[in-house]
Amino acid sequence: VLINGRYADSISVHDRGLHYGDGLFETLAVKQGQPQLWDWHMERLRAGCDRLRLAPVDPVLLRAEAEEVCAGKSRAVMKIVLTRGPAVRGYRIEAGSAATRILSLAEAADYPLSYYREGVAIRLCQTRLACNPALAGIKHLNRLEQVLARAEWDDEEIVEGLMCDVDGRVIEGIMSNIFLVRQDRIATPPVAACGVAGIMRRRIMEWARDDGLPLEERALSPREIKEADEVFLCNSLIGVWPVRRFEDADWRPGPLTARIGAAVGGCSLMPDAALSGAA
Amino acid sequence: VLINGRYADSISVHDRGLHYGDGLFETLAVKQGQPQLWDWHMERLRAGCDRLRLAPVDPVLLRAEAEEVCAGKSRAVMKIVLTRGPAVRGYRIEAGSAATRILSLAEAADYPLSYYREGVAIRLCQTRLACNPALAGIKHLNRLEQVLARAEWDDEEIVEGLMCDVDGRVIEGIMSNIFLVRQDRIATPPVAACGVAGIMRRRIMEWARDDGLPLEERALSPREIKEADEVFLCNSLIGVWPVRRFEDADWRPGPLTARIGAAVGGCSLMPDAALSGAA
Repeated sequence: VLINGRYADSISVHDRGLHYGDGLFETLAVKQGQPQLWDWHMERLRAGCDRLRLAPVDPVLLRAEAEEVCAGKSRAVMKIVLTRGPAVRGYRIEAGSAATRILSLAEAADYPLSYYREGVAIRLCQTRLACNPALAGIKHLNRLEQVLARAEWDDEEIVEGLMCDVDGRVIEGIMSNIFLVRQDRIATPPVAACGVAGIMRRRIMEWARDDGLPLEERALSPREIKEADEVFLCNSLIGVWPVRRFEDADWRPGPLTARIGAAVGGCSLMPDAALSGAA
Repeated sequence: VLINGRYADSISVHDRGLHYGDGLFETLAVKQGQPQLWDWHMERLRAGCDRLRLAPVDPVLLRAEAEEVCAGKSRAVMKIVLTRGPAVRGYRIEAGSAATRILSLAEAADYPLSYYREGVAIRLCQTRLACNPALAGIKHLNRLEQVLARAEWDDEEIVEGLMCDVDGRVIEGIMSNIFLVRQDRIATPPVAACGVAGIMRRRIMEWARDDGLPLEERALSPREIKEADEVFLCNSLIGVWPVRRFEDADWRPGPLTARIGAAVGGCSLMPDAALSGAA
């Protein structure tokens, strides 16, 4: 783990990342030594810095550190954590406080190929995403809602949980964004009041725009999801997973999901067998 | 700083407290080597562990560590942080994961005596408290709302900011709870949907109950606060601060605020001069 440019495995006990979750993170797919969709991850990180009034990190320095961490890795996961650094007690931000940069590399998770070929089973979580436009969209370190939602089930068959806002509208998965296809139109929930503006979500939205495919950003009810023709999840690491079961609804992977997976999966850790099978 | 029973100044970079704010904290006044209102702080900490499904810490062990940290300190602040400890990537809670306990001591803040004798000026923050009953009341490590609220002003004259819920009802101060007095009735907002169930808030509520003073827990509008006869703030460290100015409203410290300060301040870091002056 590279912390402020030095290899270490611990951080100051006074870091505001620990005391307040005062920071941001990005999780990137690494392929052939290269972090994928780097510019978009950096764009979101900068937007997060603006929102939290964190001093932005020198992009040249961060890129150099990322390349050092990723060097020689053919397939891995890099996590970048940025915090406001150590400080004395109190919520007030001290002028000129030094950020803490943490770059760590982990092995790529070994998901079964069936997740791509047959899809995954998902559930609806009871834990809600609170409405907070000041924190929506960015990937900050206040993640207790996700922790509580993931603690709701143990069944290994269920791979992901959907989270609703306080009004019961589906916003996203715990670690993914959700899309549905209905009569050749695709839809995904907005993330202006809560949720994360996922990088793979953006990749899919831009692909749809380029492809001339109608795409709506709108609130989705659990019922609409069950009545969809196709449902899929995405994030920077997994690429695209078709959903095969949600409550009493069942699907076989659909043609548009396969097309999208083939189109965008190359910059994720989607296995080659899934990419070609998806096409 | 005592971390899991050993003196250290850093924690694992893989600690879930850092990555997700997955943990709790308590801030206690220390007087004559003794942490104040210990049982109530421990009660709230246990309630937080239940809510977050954190394994509770052995109370005898924690008490012994607290006494070690506080020994010989006549006046100080102890912070206890409890996290879910280090883990691999992913929101899922691993069974039997070891918690991290962090006990640290800091000097008592040196607030001017005028905060107690004349009161403090406060403001209304734009940053809202999101509604989340699953996290309300407990003192968890997801504190970005407080960080953003405190970053709204620089004016040293303003000592505290009031935070509203998404419906614009005042819930609490950034680092304190709020009470108002109107026609000899006292009121404080409920903390069931957002906010922190402060220990000094509880102390005051129980004192009012014992004293036969009518006390309501109800939502307060900024306007109601301005129209109150007396307004005061409280927390475990400061004890009770009268509010002297809020927007266009001004007050001189009122008689009930003084009575309450004298009654409950002894278990906070309220200076003796303020305690006697308040009585």
